[in-house]
Amino acid sequence: MLALTVAPGTKGSARLDEVAEPDPARGEILIAAHSVGICGTDREIIDGLHGAAPPGGDRLILGHESLGRVLEVPAGRDLAIGDWVAGIVRHPDPVPCASCAHGEWDMCANGRYLEHGIKGLDGFAAERYRLDAGFVVKVDPDLAERGVLIEPASVVAKAWDQIDRIGRRAFWAPSRVLVIGAGPIGLLAALLGVQRGLEVHVLDRHTEGPKPGIVRDLGATYHSGSVEEAGSADIILECTGAPALIVEALHAARPNGIVCLTGVSAPGKKMPVDTGALNRELVLENNVVFGSVNANRAHYDQGALALRRADPRWLDRLITRRVPLADWATALEHRPDDVKTVLRFGDL
Amino acid sequence: MLALTVAPGTKGSARLDEVAEPDPARGEILIAAHSVGICGTDREIIDGLHGAAPPGGDRLILGHESLGRVLEVPAGRDLAIGDWVAGIVRHPDPVPCASCAHGEWDMCANGRYLEHGIKGLDGFAAERYRLDAGFVVKVDPDLAERGVLIEPASVVAKAWDQIDRIGRRAFWAPSRVLVIGAGPIGLLAALLGVQRGLEVHVLDRHTEGPKPGIVRDLGATYHSGSVEEAGSADIILECTGAPALIVEALHAARPNGIVCLTGVSAPGKKMPVDTGALNRELVLENNVVFGSVNANRAHYDQGALALRRADPRWLDRLITRRVPLADWATALEHRPDDVKTVLRFGDL
Repeated sequence: MLALTVAPGTKGSARLDEVAEPDPARGEILIAAHSVGICGTDREIIDGLHGAAPPGGDRLILGHESLGRVLEVPAGRDLAIGDWVAGIVRHPDPVPCASCAHGEWDMCANGRYLEHGIKGLDGFAAERYRLDAGFVVKVDPDLAERGVLIEPASVVAKAWDQIDRIGRRAFWAPSRVLVIGAGPIGLLAALLGVQRGLEVHVLDRHTEGPKPGIVRDLGATYHSGSVEEAGSADIILECTGAPALIVEALHAARPNGIVCLTGVSAPGKKMPVDTGALNRELVLENNVVFGSVNANRAHYDQGALALRRADPRWLDRLITRRVPLADWATALEHRPDDVKTVLRFGDL
Repeated sequence: MLALTVAPGTKGSARLDEVAEPDPARGEILIAAHSVGICGTDREIIDGLHGAAPPGGDRLILGHESLGRVLEVPAGRDLAIGDWVAGIVRHPDPVPCASCAHGEWDMCANGRYLEHGIKGLDGFAAERYRLDAGFVVKVDPDLAERGVLIEPASVVAKAWDQIDRIGRRAFWAPSRVLVIGAGPIGLLAALLGVQRGLEVHVLDRHTEGPKPGIVRDLGATYHSGSVEEAGSADIILECTGAPALIVEALHAARPNGIVCLTGVSAPGKKMPVDTGALNRELVLENNVVFGSVNANRAHYDQGALALRRADPRWLDRLITRRVPLADWATALEHRPDDVKTVLRFGDL
């Protein structure tokens, strides 16, 4: 079968490969790939900056944002042949840390987790793959092809779940949300904010292209200036990882406000920061800043629910390009009007 | 009666003044001052950097860390003449914000709170003062003069209460605590960590003087090198407000770790910071950083309980100087071996 593979650590090593059918030992459920979403992590891996092959090999099958259909499933699994499904990306180590043992592998405390298509486990950019039922999320048939958004929605659901939980530390009635970055994570973060009944503002640098309209049609407000111009907020979701924006985000938090950092930035570049002023504001305003990564099974369910509650036509606008597997190289390009690019496998 | 007053905004304006007896409209309980603790905020006010006089005047009675004895109390107040008491520093505005209306004036969302001895309300460095029962904390007679530590203990209790609440966002079993700064706040933060059964480490620059021994006799470990040398921790309480230490503290947090900032630093000085590396660590390790200020009534009760559970001889060592009111100017000096300096009123 065909799979998109890469030699982690070697830039430009991605290629379409003929690989063996998935080993039944990998999982009891056989899934036919329908589509795979492409994100910044995939580009980092292809650029040789990130990623690890499964033990014993030097190539990794890419792909962690998945949508597929069940081809084989044992009886008694609450899944039928033909069901739409998404795979959970992160798996605990066979000897789990305490967080992983509690099913909270998104909070893995020893870094020994594995991730499909990223770290030590083959990904979902293969015609077929196998998973155990515990790592398969059933996708509502009404959602159909939009189900490929479940993985990014799970990441956003985890961020919001943490905001909700941290926010319960005291009385708090947040009203205004600022999302920085109108990529797929930012737009889905805005969706979950609107679904919570909050006043949502989204900041991005684009003044043209699809993003301003997508934000407006969600019932949120689009801004393209500075963070300061977009205004202070009770909840800020930073979805770019851009260092200058992160510092501005911290200053924009209102008293008792929570800033959630979701963007994985590159280290190695120092910038002048008034750390004294930032610290003073955080202390005197009881602000919280936290980082959020990955998602556990509960967050996949929360993300799937958020997508089902969304307007399907709005979700369709997030998928700005659908590229056949054979043209995978063009799927990896980042074009100005892209929101989410999806790699399509044959009609299954 | 005598009171230590200052003209806020005017450096060097502190003096011992003859002032009017407290207005009965200020509160139903009349208290005779026993002692007042001196802290960095008092020095900031005396240096003209901070503070606001009550409306209609230009002088402010100093003092917010209080211990006194009841001189007059109406019937039915669960207080008797002669009881040891401490005053609560912050009061909500007469038109409270939602947090203040919930009794959480430490989380005041509109900044219109008042603070005895700091902002718009006379302080406790007067021979007598008045408070309503809602702002009086009864001090256990066994604690006696050590009760002057209740206010700093309340600030630390709030910080720990927030750590506990935020920590419940996910499964978490913290074990190692790092406290940065061995002033009164740092030492009391270490006390509450030890009382929670955690392994506590305290970092300060002093290699001599009373601090290393006070830390060791608490059952904690004293360090005088860098944050990195003191080692990573699940919980970090930053109690200095020194910008360079704050950045090091963020790097020292373990996965899922929580950094609590309690030091009010001066703004205005930029330093080179690798914001990309900091953000990346916060995100990939699910770290939380939060600022904590002030305390509400529940925290005074928690702080008082922590002091009662402590070894009284250990608490006595935190009060390194007791200065009579007449010598107030020497109480405000910061000497190398000082932990907490207390201003003593006449024997009452």
